[in-house]
Amino acid sequence: MSGAVLRGPQQDLRARLRLMVLTHPTPACGRSLPAVIAECIEAGATAIQVRDKTAPAAGLYETTRRLAPLIRAGGALLVVNDRFDVALAAGADGVHLGPDDLPVAAVRASVPADFLIGASTDDPSAGRRLAAAGADYLGVGAVYGTRSKPGLEDEAVGPGRVEAVMKAAGIPALGIGGITPRNVAEVARAGAGIAVLGAVMHAPDPAGAVRALLDAMELRR
Amino acid sequence: MSGAVLRGPQQDLRARLRLMVLTHPTPACGRSLPAVIAECIEAGATAIQVRDKTAPAAGLYETTRRLAPLIRAGGALLVVNDRFDVALAAGADGVHLGPDDLPVAAVRASVPADFLIGASTDDPSAGRRLAAAGADYLGVGAVYGTRSKPGLEDEAVGPGRVEAVMKAAGIPALGIGGITPRNVAEVARAGAGIAVLGAVMHAPDPAGAVRALLDAMELRR
Repeated sequence: MSGAVLRGPQQDLRARLRLMVLTHPTPACGRSLPAVIAECIEAGATAIQVRDKTAPAAGLYETTRRLAPLIRAGGALLVVNDRFDVALAAGADGVHLGPDDLPVAAVRASVPADFLIGASTDDPSAGRRLAAAGADYLGVGAVYGTRSKPGLEDEAVGPGRVEAVMKAAGIPALGIGGITPRNVAEVARAGAGIAVLGAVMHAPDPAGAVRALLDAMELRR
Repeated sequence: MSGAVLRGPQQDLRARLRLMVLTHPTPACGRSLPAVIAECIEAGATAIQVRDKTAPAAGLYETTRRLAPLIRAGGALLVVNDRFDVALAAGADGVHLGPDDLPVAAVRASVPADFLIGASTDDPSAGRRLAAAGADYLGVGAVYGTRSKPGLEDEAVGPGRVEAVMKAAGIPALGIGGITPRNVAEVARAGAGIAVLGAVMHAPDPAGAVRALLDAMELRR
């Protein structure tokens, strides 16, 4: 059930969802994904979401297996995008479900109780339903819109929406989309963590990008 | 472990894998997939594999959920191609894993003990390894090659290979690829069931195609 009071494990989860890095198979800095992820965790990233829309399951599994030990060693959470089969098989902590993925309630009924389920929405009512269906956290965005994708209109929802969704759902939320050191404080003030892909994976210095975001959130550890 | 002796549940499984129909989202006869699958089971199909390489998980899940009651009512097995997450969430009996899918051993460790795992191979040694890793049955092919795909050479392995893989693995096998009423008896004599996609899904009369195959196997019920 949804509720305004965050209970123990959820309180912990909120801290562990301060800054989630979504992976890209080939980071722009030219170093390997495992090297970049290790740097990001060292720099303070608290969660990693393995994501590769083009890889077959075997490839996503191998990537997740390769990253798992260093993510665990760094005390970060590991979730897999879309596929809870890959997440379970690779020993990840959870799955992140988008709108074209399996329904949250069906996943909740199929996985261990402590397996994390994240889900995406930008709507407070939908957020409440997803929490009731068993989601542990929500990804909300695009907070600041997608950058220059031809043919897509700017659909920025703003940090106020992140807060509204989070409050309606009563579970932790991550703002995602167009977040930079310049605007991240607004999202942090809303009480949400952040999820970043391009801001880190496309950066010449991924660890520096993580530190800049955490500094700007005033939550750098 | 592999072994030449088929035990109880596997013996049952062999009978339940006599004729597996792989689904196509839009059967050529023009009727709906659920209508066609219901006809095929009525005609004697013993197993259905839901398969749609292009659908997102939500679509594959919805298709599986829609087909499940009529497949169950007909006493047939229901497996989902590639994704055990979709299979578990939709209450299917099992998953069929191809070479680009999750490793069998990792899946075996992640699913209930009675959840069926099928895997594809055309190699006896690989079949033995897959059985040892936890596969319950094997798909072997293409038995008679793929039909007129430009750029792909004919890779027919023949019914002898199906038998060799099945014997090496000690678990039931399904021959797949180019099987018709004219050649199906050879596969049946090898002791294997069959899996068909185009022969049924592209047929003007899918139930008639199932009956013709079963008649030719001399195993029509």
